[in-house]
Amino acid sequence: MMATLPYLLRPENICHIAEGRLHIGDRRVFPFEKRFESCSTVEEVARSLKVMVTQGGGPLQVALTTLRFIAQEMGQGRIPYSAGELQRLVGLLIKARPTNTTMKRVMLSLLGELQGLFEEKEPVEAFVLSLNAMVDRQELYYDELYHQMGRLGSTLLEDGDVVLTTCFAEHTFLLSLAYAKEEGKRISVLVNETRPYLQGSRLTYPSLLEMGIEARLITDGMGAHYMRAAKLSKYMTASDLVCMDGTVVNKVGTLANAVACKHYKVPYYAFSISPDPTRLSSSDISMEERDGQEVLSCMGRPTTCEGRALYPSFDIIEASLVQGIVTPKGVLSPSEVARSFI
Amino acid sequence: MMATLPYLLRPENICHIAEGRLHIGDRRVFPFEKRFESCSTVEEVARSLKVMVTQGGGPLQVALTTLRFIAQEMGQGRIPYSAGELQRLVGLLIKARPTNTTMKRVMLSLLGELQGLFEEKEPVEAFVLSLNAMVDRQELYYDELYHQMGRLGSTLLEDGDVVLTTCFAEHTFLLSLAYAKEEGKRISVLVNETRPYLQGSRLTYPSLLEMGIEARLITDGMGAHYMRAAKLSKYMTASDLVCMDGTVVNKVGTLANAVACKHYKVPYYAFSISPDPTRLSSSDISMEERDGQEVLSCMGRPTTCEGRALYPSFDIIEASLVQGIVTPKGVLSPSEVARSFI
Repeated sequence: MMATLPYLLRPENICHIAEGRLHIGDRRVFPFEKRFESCSTVEEVARSLKVMVTQGGGPLQVALTTLRFIAQEMGQGRIPYSAGELQRLVGLLIKARPTNTTMKRVMLSLLGELQGLFEEKEPVEAFVLSLNAMVDRQELYYDELYHQMGRLGSTLLEDGDVVLTTCFAEHTFLLSLAYAKEEGKRISVLVNETRPYLQGSRLTYPSLLEMGIEARLITDGMGAHYMRAAKLSKYMTASDLVCMDGTVVNKVGTLANAVACKHYKVPYYAFSISPDPTRLSSSDISMEERDGQEVLSCMGRPTTCEGRALYPSFDIIEASLVQGIVTPKGVLSPSEVARSFI
Repeated sequence: MMATLPYLLRPENICHIAEGRLHIGDRRVFPFEKRFESCSTVEEVARSLKVMVTQGGGPLQVALTTLRFIAQEMGQGRIPYSAGELQRLVGLLIKARPTNTTMKRVMLSLLGELQGLFEEKEPVEAFVLSLNAMVDRQELYYDELYHQMGRLGSTLLEDGDVVLTTCFAEHTFLLSLAYAKEEGKRISVLVNETRPYLQGSRLTYPSLLEMGIEARLITDGMGAHYMRAAKLSKYMTASDLVCMDGTVVNKVGTLANAVACKHYKVPYYAFSISPDPTRLSSSDISMEERDGQEVLSCMGRPTTCEGRALYPSFDIIEASLVQGIVTPKGVLSPSEVARSFI
């Protein structure tokens, strides 16, 4: 049996093509509105990615669908059928989200394959078919990978577990819960609201309710409270990056919980579909600082007077705080990452 | 030289009597509005305390000023001049904030003294004078205590310190910073916004700006990030309760930071004007759970779909996480509290 995805993660709600336009599910207004940002050009798609209409795994899916859109437009003569134009348009997507290295890696690899088709001077109809088949394969690969990791993640969960999570851990974490539920395990989730963007409140919490998983929202400072009270048995998050020494990079706020996990002996697991063989340790990471002004408001309304704030996007979680990393090669201890991925 | 207080902590802005009414500074709308809740009866004062028009040390100041108000009204014949009526009205104040044990203790002690005046059958004019003198003494006592503890706190601060704080630590912490500044120490403060009520954003941050102290706002999950980066040298908070074994009780979110302090070797100091000799350890504490619905919104606007949330008001911070407790008897290590206060 295959666990089903909540609204936010169903492919058509991440993005889809309809009536000659590419529609991107707008995560900025979810769950208050289920709206789509509608784009008629790749430039508009890139702009939407830049202003964070979607996030997490969304941009990769949007980039793949944009390839289909480009092929369709080339087939109908609205975009010039040329290798140079394809390269330019894919470049716009990559540049829209410079820190999304997975999207970049996948796009550059597909671009390489597609260049071959141009060199063989395929007619545009054959190009469209080949491109769609290529994207189909990619989508199938990720779909299967997500479910594989969900099954793996579910083996870490035990009946009665109360699991803390931060931000929106998407497919791998949500499918872990879905498979655990299918296996009859009762799991309850505590969700950090994840200020300033509230991905926990707005994306994770409604998705869990939709999936029929018991969930309660807490503020970002409450995790340790429940660990001390022995009311929390596991901590699970996605990861933006995993280094070869087992260092995990994830949304700011993750570190405070991971440190509390160590103190109160609660295991912390991070999901990673692709630990990065080019980053050996935390010294290979350049950290992104976002505009502190975002901390001075909540959903667009000021929370204080005019002033200064700080917004480091990501935390670096040292390997000693991590119990295990759920990867396509199994649940690894941090020290096992290098030998499995280099 | 005497350090000066910011707007929120100046006595007249906590509450004052004018034109026959008692006006309470409304901390719920600060800093967006500087409004006062205006009360013409003690019942209205009690209702204002109950709905959290003021908080922290505010209710004690309001209760003291309400005694002056009662005396004035008795003098003018608008409240019956009787011991029974006084007892009933003070009871309303105490019941309005059952967890504010300092306010209760002070009120019961003053009530005891005032009962003596009734027994001596003093004329009402003499009663009014005696009551005002009594309240003067109390206010002077706390005023001096706050400054004494501020001077003590300032000795813990070193030039160049970056201090993290949570919630609104009021007089003792803010005066520590003011005295440190007078001594020429450059101190910078990182302020946790303190969800869900945003006391950090709304009360602490504007007060620091007003006092000319460098301050930046961060979300509640970011403290550990700056400790790991060695950009944070101290953590300081108020305390709602200190037990005789050095256990500190304070706003939820404090524990996560205190645990991170231990891990990254950053000293955590709590201020306490009166460690409680009746609470020997954390097993003597009954913890208040607030309505989880408050976590589902920010400044009155929903942050997610309808659902369930948790809101434990306070954290229990074990003594092993506390470097020192700033008290009227000096800066004590947790193990020194009992011998100084029992």
